[in-house]
Amino acid sequence: MTKHAVTYELIKECPRSGARLGRLHTPHGTFETPMFMPVGTQATVKTLAPEELYDMGSQVILSNTYHLFLRPGHELVRKAGGLHKFMNYKRGMLTDSGGFQVFSLGAMRKITEEGVMFRSHIDGSKQFLSPEVSTQVQEALGADIAMAFDECIPYPADFDYAKRSTERTTRWAKRCLETHTREDQSMFGIVQGGMYPELRRMSVQQLTELDFAGYGIGGLSVGEPKSMMYDILSHTTELMPKDKARYLMGVGTADCIVEAVNLGVDMFDCVFPTRVARNGTAMTHTGRLVVRNATYAEDFRPIEEGCDCYACRNFSRAYIRHLFKAEEIFGLRLLSIHNLHFLLHFAKEIREAIANDCFPEFRERFLENYR
Amino acid sequence: MTKHAVTYELIKECPRSGARLGRLHTPHGTFETPMFMPVGTQATVKTLAPEELYDMGSQVILSNTYHLFLRPGHELVRKAGGLHKFMNYKRGMLTDSGGFQVFSLGAMRKITEEGVMFRSHIDGSKQFLSPEVSTQVQEALGADIAMAFDECIPYPADFDYAKRSTERTTRWAKRCLETHTREDQSMFGIVQGGMYPELRRMSVQQLTELDFAGYGIGGLSVGEPKSMMYDILSHTTELMPKDKARYLMGVGTADCIVEAVNLGVDMFDCVFPTRVARNGTAMTHTGRLVVRNATYAEDFRPIEEGCDCYACRNFSRAYIRHLFKAEEIFGLRLLSIHNLHFLLHFAKEIREAIANDCFPEFRERFLENYR
Ligand SMILES: [Zn+2]
Ligand SMILES: [Zn+2]
Repeated sequence: MTKHAVTYELIKECPRSGARLGRLHTPHGTFETPMFMPVGTQATVKTLAPEELYDMGSQVILSNTYHLFLRPGHELVRKAGGLHKFMNYKRGMLTDSGGFQVFSLGAMRKITEEGVMFRSHIDGSKQFLSPEVSTQVQEALGADIAMAFDECIPYPADFDYAKRSTERTTRWAKRCLETHTREDQSMFGIVQGGMYPELRRMSVQQLTELDFAGYGIGGLSVGEPKSMMYDILSHTTELMPKDKARYLMGVGTADCIVEAVNLGVDMFDCVFPTRVARNGTAMTHTGRLVVRNATYAEDFRPIEEGCDCYACRNFSRAYIRHLFKAEEIFGLRLLSIHNLHFLLHFAKEIREAIANDCFPEFRERFLENYR
Repeated sequence: MTKHAVTYELIKECPRSGARLGRLHTPHGTFETPMFMPVGTQATVKTLAPEELYDMGSQVILSNTYHLFLRPGHELVRKAGGLHKFMNYKRGMLTDSGGFQVFSLGAMRKITEEGVMFRSHIDGSKQFLSPEVSTQVQEALGADIAMAFDECIPYPADFDYAKRSTERTTRWAKRCLETHTREDQSMFGIVQGGMYPELRRMSVQQLTELDFAGYGIGGLSVGEPKSMMYDILSHTTELMPKDKARYLMGVGTADCIVEAVNLGVDMFDCVFPTRVARNGTAMTHTGRLVVRNATYAEDFRPIEEGCDCYACRNFSRAYIRHLFKAEEIFGLRLLSIHNLHFLLHFAKEIREAIANDCFPEFRERFLENYR
């Protein structure tokens, strides 16, 4: 086994749940888990500056290989000195493989054993991504963590298709590792298997035989009922090695995060906080608050009482609502700040609860108040 | 004469030009002139946070009575504790009178001696602004400086119309002063007179007989040739009292600012810096730089070498261009920061030149390099 650039250190396991406290050591610093990762799809976390992310406790952020491959192109990012330098983010960074995006293109893509042919959503040009290309592109981008190129199985999917796809994800994972050379970057494999416990088991077994620095859990939160997601997640994490990080891909509402932590997950990402901000929606400990609504027109309280984010410390619901009605970008910034702060702070609350031996109580209390 | 909340202190006159160094004392602090004022039309300087404005040396900012009157409404701003508190800007603030905007509505407005009936550009509702209403609205907004409600004469305009309009502006100015009661706010009159030196003289004479704390110079930069603007400006400022601030309304390109300072102007505002930012255009000491252009795709230099704004200290042309191509808001923020910083810093360079007895040389050198 090679020495990995990125390693997971298990600090503490909750004796009454699957929750675990840990540290992720990376070339750009050591970060605390469980962790929420803000998404910077196009080399920018929508509307925000790096300093604003630092201020709210952002650690590792995620950027999308599919988008950067198409625009501005990975060679340009390489020339800029890598993604960290290009977008001037100095903490940890992770790039996905592009697999999820190209598979989402539907009729605009064609999958073979070799890889995926697809048409760019920007200019319709013919493009190709494969385990080798994705790995090379991610090396050019130079994040701390690269993800293996996988196929995300849709829901529902029949057993035979799910099995064939999961086996191919394993073959592709090997090709990614064989291609990967960058020593200041680690690669995570991605567990698939659809909604079939035995395929999840197979995927974990096959991937843990390979030399990955950590593991993504893919193919969840793709339309299945939440109970099914938690059930499959539980079957998956219990098989996973304890000495590597576990990253549940694309999940980022507070209730799902607390439940997944309960089942042993360490890392999360989701575009949800910035996406709902665009609709004037704030995330709070009691659920969503649609600040655009007329009921907040003369409400001079902060978005969430007790929140110490920049938006809540300085501006009222009435002002933010005005900004949205007037289509002023600063409103979008303020809600993006609050929502990302909410999830980053929520992950911190979870870490503190695990550290203080009260995670099960924290989880219960939180779920009682959340709607 | 009442004691004004806002006073102008003349520090130094350039012996070889009309340039003057001064201080504007306001209830929210003392500010240096010549000064550029960023425009926050709808209670926000587009895309930016107050702290970003402080960082770039912003002193007084301007907000628009017309827009705030219609949305969110001045009564709401009053309930919020005034504009300073509503938008959380702690330095100086000035509101225009709404006159310029309602006169720009063309067919959607009707002018009488009483005031202006107009239809809201937001919902088409019938609205009315007059010297009294504008003054009351501005008192509710609570900026440090309120502007008298005037008629901005278009270019070209015949002499008789310009004369009648200018006389009405004087009558309206009196009504504004009679309505105004707020002691922690001062009102500036607005000199009109079109492109006729003798009407400018009349306007200055009539307005300086009234008890204004300072004077706007309106009706310039409305489509006339630049040489005519400077000529009329020169005829106007030479008649104006030395102990009050002179504010050239709506002018904000660097060449016009340096020329107007040369003719004795102290204050400027313009939406130009944030407006051209939206088109991907940067303002520099040598003219405009369209960072969207393909020529900057792999240009890893800052927007302007030597600029110490946040954007130039941290990001490349290539990155900002990428943000624009990808329609990412952070690009707009970065160009807005650079452009406003450019003009705020340019005003500072002008102040330093006057202080160091080299304003004429500064002006000449600047105009030589600027295209
Ligand atoms: Zn908040
Ligand atoms: Zn700059």
